[in-house]
Amino acid sequence: MDTPHVVVVGAGFGGLAAARALVDAPVRVTIVDRANHHLFQPLLYQVAMAALSPAEIAVPIRALFRDERNVSVLMAEVTGFDLDARTVALDDGTSLSFDFLVVAAGAETNYYGHPEWAAHAPSLKSIEDALEIRRRVLVALERAESARHGAGDDAADEALRRKLLTFVVIGGGPTGLELAGAIAELARPIAKSDFRTLDPSWIKVILVEAGERLLATFDPRLSEKAAESLTELGVTVRTGVRVTNIDDQGVWIGEELIASSSILWTAGVRASGLAAKLSKEAGAPLDRGGRVVVGEDCALPGRPRVFAIGDLACFPTAGGSLPGVSPVAMQQGRHVAATIVRDLRGEPREPFRYFDKGSMATIGRQRAVAQVGKLRMSGVVAWLAWLFVHLWYLIDFKNRLSVLADWFWSYVRFRHGARLITGRERR
Amino acid sequence: MDTPHVVVVGAGFGGLAAARALVDAPVRVTIVDRANHHLFQPLLYQVAMAALSPAEIAVPIRALFRDERNVSVLMAEVTGFDLDARTVALDDGTSLSFDFLVVAAGAETNYYGHPEWAAHAPSLKSIEDALEIRRRVLVALERAESARHGAGDDAADEALRRKLLTFVVIGGGPTGLELAGAIAELARPIAKSDFRTLDPSWIKVILVEAGERLLATFDPRLSEKAAESLTELGVTVRTGVRVTNIDDQGVWIGEELIASSSILWTAGVRASGLAAKLSKEAGAPLDRGGRVVVGEDCALPGRPRVFAIGDLACFPTAGGSLPGVSPVAMQQGRHVAATIVRDLRGEPREPFRYFDKGSMATIGRQRAVAQVGKLRMSGVVAWLAWLFVHLWYLIDFKNRLSVLADWFWSYVRFRHGARLITGRERR
Repeated sequence: MDTPHVVVVGAGFGGLAAARALVDAPVRVTIVDRANHHLFQPLLYQVAMAALSPAEIAVPIRALFRDERNVSVLMAEVTGFDLDARTVALDDGTSLSFDFLVVAAGAETNYYGHPEWAAHAPSLKSIEDALEIRRRVLVALERAESARHGAGDDAADEALRRKLLTFVVIGGGPTGLELAGAIAELARPIAKSDFRTLDPSWIKVILVEAGERLLATFDPRLSEKAAESLTELGVTVRTGVRVTNIDDQGVWIGEELIASSSILWTAGVRASGLAAKLSKEAGAPLDRGGRVVVGEDCALPGRPRVFAIGDLACFPTAGGSLPGVSPVAMQQGRHVAATIVRDLRGEPREPFRYFDKGSMATIGRQRAVAQVGKLRMSGVVAWLAWLFVHLWYLIDFKNRLSVLADWFWSYVRFRHGARLITGRERR
Repeated sequence: MDTPHVVVVGAGFGGLAAARALVDAPVRVTIVDRANHHLFQPLLYQVAMAALSPAEIAVPIRALFRDERNVSVLMAEVTGFDLDARTVALDDGTSLSFDFLVVAAGAETNYYGHPEWAAHAPSLKSIEDALEIRRRVLVALERAESARHGAGDDAADEALRRKLLTFVVIGGGPTGLELAGAIAELARPIAKSDFRTLDPSWIKVILVEAGERLLATFDPRLSEKAAESLTELGVTVRTGVRVTNIDDQGVWIGEELIASSSILWTAGVRASGLAAKLSKEAGAPLDRGGRVVVGEDCALPGRPRVFAIGDLACFPTAGGSLPGVSPVAMQQGRHVAATIVRDLRGEPREPFRYFDKGSMATIGRQRAVAQVGKLRMSGVVAWLAWLFVHLWYLIDFKNRLSVLADWFWSYVRFRHGARLITGRERR
């Protein structure tokens, strides 16, 4: 028998964990991703805020598997599956055949039926997104500085300046909090030190959340702590507020307009479209978030050699389903790798069990909230925990030392980070 | 009398030198640039080759003048001048009035009447260009790796792979040499370590120069040395070869096609279009490269308070005119700053004198050629000189230590640099 071929779709936390757990297994592994790099998404907001450079939180997938001769990397987009023929279709018209398939393509931004909002309110999923958000925030400051050269219409100048200096973050999850906190912490000192005519007090950061509280999946006391921390940083927190439209004037909440030229969208994700394709092929149901429902071994029903893990999989639990967070994806990745090895050895499968290590969100540079089991933390202690956990997982790469040094270096330099505006306007 | 207002257009080497020389002068300075950063262009090829990150060779202009309260920075594009009214027109429809004007807008790429070539052969002038070139080179390797999944037509696969792995650099000046050397040095080790099906020997790097020798402005012996060094690195050097067309098949030299999907253009620059606008306003002649001819004080004829310096100015000398290199721009920048101060003190002007410190070009990581006065250097000694000079000028910034550390760190990591493919296809 030929060496079994495992195809892993997606090099996020889930796919990477699966592939890494297979480097010593008697299989060939091919990782397919449309990007050439693995992205450490939890720190993406720091790239958006110019505190880190892209190279500090992204690593070429090839570099991670340079010494693993049983792993190949293919930069391509998966366009579909033929599970009977055991093939994966690629965007260049070719296909890959597999013995085992692990689909870990993650999630994409959900504008809930309003794709036209994307142009006005970019989301934060890729390096390109982060650089676009960075560009918009920095350009807004530049434009506000030069608004003094207006035609002399003071009221119009003032309205324009206010619009340019109002930053709206939509979505009260961890990413929204991190972005809002970082903007508040960064924009005012920059306005003060680097600009000549901007008054730091003109800068408004507004966090808008449709639900009744921030961090809906956290303990309510932590939601409150988070709101307090944001307020201390000068962020206006507005919960229970539903966005009805986003256009070039700003954010509409019914009849109310929040005039803003820098709107960031973190309000929702839905599973990658590949989940629906798997669902159709395997006859497996989709959940409300477009995730394909998997069995307790993370395989599709009736397709024991096809696994779906991470953000595009719905893993049912007693209380509902596992959340779309990186620990779930990583643990599932390792589990399906172990399952493949068991299969090859003729051993029985074991069901996947999620070990919940807790969750955390950071707000600015000295505050965070965290819950681990029954433990609730906030303030500096939680922030240090956040830092430690992120460093720990960030450096889970070959070039541990260098990434750690780079990152730490940039982190302590925070206020002196290179705030480069690059790229062309995207609309 | 109000504090005199000096407007500096362009934050390259010339504009920055002028502005920095005026920080203690009794003037207000406004620097206008369409980018928000000063770019250390001599190392841009290292960003293109993924050895450095953009933030390591670019610094926000604001950061450079954070503590100089008499300097303002404006991110805007200059669209024209009214020298009689003493105003500069900006792209947002507003204008700036000046008492003294220093135009240092540099040069842009010259495709010699073939703007359509730009889509196939990007040039290297901005961070965006560098990231685009990086993207193309890395994507070419990725595509070549996946070409094995072709439809089974071996001859077509082979032709495609050859096209993908042929890199053509057009132009035998310092930038062309640096790019060709870096590609040769980088691509083969990457192909070997990171890819599974690429044979490093398939990679071809071709340097095409229309003139009879490389580095036309250098001593002919150094041109020869440079060609030897390139050949040792595995670059095919073709001089005396005129490109007649560039399309999606590759580079045409008459009837001969060099099939290539990665073509880089370094064959020529022409002065910024602002030179022509100054020429029209002041009645000053333009030279063949579109540069405006200035007097011996770097001012326009009949316009003593309007200076043009650097790559967009033609400064006549006994033998012709000063070359478009950064030392000329920097020395002119300092000279016009001193001239403005003299004017304000009522002292007579002095003519500008260029002190030629020599020129150098590097080829790969251990070879360079340099000429300083009558001295000619090549090999490792010249490379060390190159390194020293570039470090010296690179760190001529406020955050000397951090940039130096960052850069050195990335430099020693060379082979492990983060080779990220970012951005969308640009065509």
